[in-house]
Amino acid sequence: MNVKQLAAEKAVEHIEHGMTVGLGTGTTAYFAIQRIAARVKEGLGIRAVASSMHSEELARQLGIPIAPFAAIEGIDVTIDGADEVDEALNLIKGGGGALLREKILAANSAKFIVIVDESKLVRKLGTFPLPVEVIPFAYELTRRQVQALGCEPTLRTVDGKTFVTDNGNFILDCAFPVIDNPADLSGKLHLIPGVAEHGLFVKMTDTVIIGSGDGTTRYL
Amino acid sequence: MNVKQLAAEKAVEHIEHGMTVGLGTGTTAYFAIQRIAARVKEGLGIRAVASSMHSEELARQLGIPIAPFAAIEGIDVTIDGADEVDEALNLIKGGGGALLREKILAANSAKFIVIVDESKLVRKLGTFPLPVEVIPFAYELTRRQVQALGCEPTLRTVDGKTFVTDNGNFILDCAFPVIDNPADLSGKLHLIPGVAEHGLFVKMTDTVIIGSGDGTTRYL
Repeated sequence: MNVKQLAAEKAVEHIEHGMTVGLGTGTTAYFAIQRIAARVKEGLGIRAVASSMHSEELARQLGIPIAPFAAIEGIDVTIDGADEVDEALNLIKGGGGALLREKILAANSAKFIVIVDESKLVRKLGTFPLPVEVIPFAYELTRRQVQALGCEPTLRTVDGKTFVTDNGNFILDCAFPVIDNPADLSGKLHLIPGVAEHGLFVKMTDTVIIGSGDGTTRYL
Repeated sequence: MNVKQLAAEKAVEHIEHGMTVGLGTGTTAYFAIQRIAARVKEGLGIRAVASSMHSEELARQLGIPIAPFAAIEGIDVTIDGADEVDEALNLIKGGGGALLREKILAANSAKFIVIVDESKLVRKLGTFPLPVEVIPFAYELTRRQVQALGCEPTLRTVDGKTFVTDNGNFILDCAFPVIDNPADLSGKLHLIPGVAEHGLFVKMTDTVIIGSGDGTTRYL
């Protein structure tokens, strides 16, 4: 069993009968979705909401019941991956482009569990370029304002075309030398009109489960 | 000449040859666009960017040159209306639904001029329900988080259908008893994932021009 799968299966142990579960996006989260589906087949009664069209489709195919947001009051537990995790459990997310929906789920979850392998642990955030989701309208001006915070923002493209999020927005991948104060940077990014959301998850994470190459998992 | 037109024409006096001009949205801003078009016909050389599809279309029809955002480095002056103005020149905007694009233009303008009639002046903001633009995904959860800040949010509808902004988002009209600290509320709203932008314009306004019923205008 690979490292990501190991951590994902550990995380799914936190899901109990009757819960509303938030499904993450990305390779690690997909292992969690697979494991949740197996438990649903065994009789676990849950309902789920997903952080991307891709995850929702996968969940439906695997037989996980999806609830409309109008029918839920909150989420009991959300399981998702991350691109970087620091010692204070702050994250960078958004490499897969689903950061806004992932953050909405995390912010509305009683428990937010992050699963990673050892390679994602850092002392300070910022080696991974920070994804910032921006409104397409006048994004050239928004890019200048983000750049003025001390980074080099690159408009994300896929196969030569501008990448568009599930929400119809663009992503700027922002290379900062280092992110010394994630909360401060988060606040400054939010104040820029045109920034819909960014990939810094500050003080949102309850538990990090780390899968190691030696076949063990540990909690951070 | 009506009061709004009076203030709008006064504002247009601030536009000089060679400037990049931001065009607002709404009845007052439209008077400004009409006056700008008249000056362009008289030989004023400017280029404009617009805060809504509606204003851009109007400007094109009237012969105002529209510049792509990729071609400009910033905006010299933006002229727009407001739904409420307090004594510190803080605003509530968004009654017409264009608040996000309007705020992007304002934030990138060397000079942001607001034109109103006397009825829009208030001691404290909040009589006018605050428009908050939210991402459609899971807006039911976002609405709960906005409500927890002490307001009653109503999803905006037009002719029985959910209103959709030019950016593809929804609007929550949020009735607060009173907004004592606009900067504080602005920061709290920005921290809610799913809030794309809100109608509080805090410390963004350089000049307010007020048109009065007696045919005069004054600066605030």
